[in-house]
Amino acid sequence: MTKDEIMSLINRSLFASVGYTDSSGKQNIRRVFCVWHDGIGKHLISTNTSSSHVREFMKNGNACLYFSDDDTFEGICLSGNIKVHFEKEFKQLLWNDGDEKYYSKGVDDEDYCVLEFIAETGKYYRYDGKGELSKEEMQGTGTFINGYAG
Amino acid sequence: MTKDEIMSLINRSLFASVGYTDSSGKQNIRRVFCVWHDGIGKHLISTNTSSSHVREFMKNGNACLYFSDDDTFEGICLSGNIKVHFEKEFKQLLWNDGDEKYYSKGVDDEDYCVLEFIAETGKYYRYDGKGELSKEEMQGTGTFINGYAG
Repeated sequence: MTKDEIMSLINRSLFASVGYTDSSGKQNIRRVFCVWHDGIGKHLISTNTSSSHVREFMKNGNACLYFSDDDTFEGICLSGNIKVHFEKEFKQLLWNDGDEKYYSKGVDDEDYCVLEFIAETGKYYRYDGKGELSKEEMQGTGTFINGYAG
Repeated sequence: MTKDEIMSLINRSLFASVGYTDSSGKQNIRRVFCVWHDGIGKHLISTNTSSSHVREFMKNGNACLYFSDDDTFEGICLSGNIKVHFEKEFKQLLWNDGDEKYYSKGVDDEDYCVLEFIAETGKYYRYDGKGELSKEEMQGTGTFINGYAG
């Protein structure tokens, strides 16, 4: 897969799967809405601070993020780390009109936070072959873009 | 979600995501075709012995299996173990006409194997709430059924 084909998969996916090991040693996957991207390697996800996966990420950020399309048999698995952000710049960026129905106190709601996933390594899988991504290939421009709106 | 709603999600999914930690400590997810089920808790997956995830499961079977539907906002995460089977009874059960194009030596091809996932714990997630599954709820009848054909 080319870098453009991988970015196309990421931008049209809307959802991604997060994989992590919880503090009891169990493997877990959570499905998350993930549309803010900076290149192939960095992604933002808004979520509830009170969720069990967020509590785990505050202790241990080791995680993977997987984007796939079952119709085209394409998948990309990024392994790296998750940081939990409470800074207003992140919360404001991902806030949408109407999100008050999820977070009643608005953008400052302490139950609202933003996960930043940062890839260390990446692999792609497709019917015609698999391969590894270099750090250079995963590097973005330093600005997060909403791939859903684009 | 009721047990029937969870079984319906599993049967119509066709694909599932497997989560595991590899021997270097990295988190990984692989998308797999998964249509053979024995209740909520046991699932069979045919795959290539030479795949990196199979090599990892031969060393450490700790894994999770995740079924989801992005349209209905339903997800089920089973945590447990994977056994790699080379016995003819498993390989014969999952073999389909035409699989020779993947495994040139036929059902006895040593690159063809069957993963058996066995859940220890289970959680479901839906817009209207989440919950945990008991071992009794995940228990099947002892017979694997092809949910795709059914």
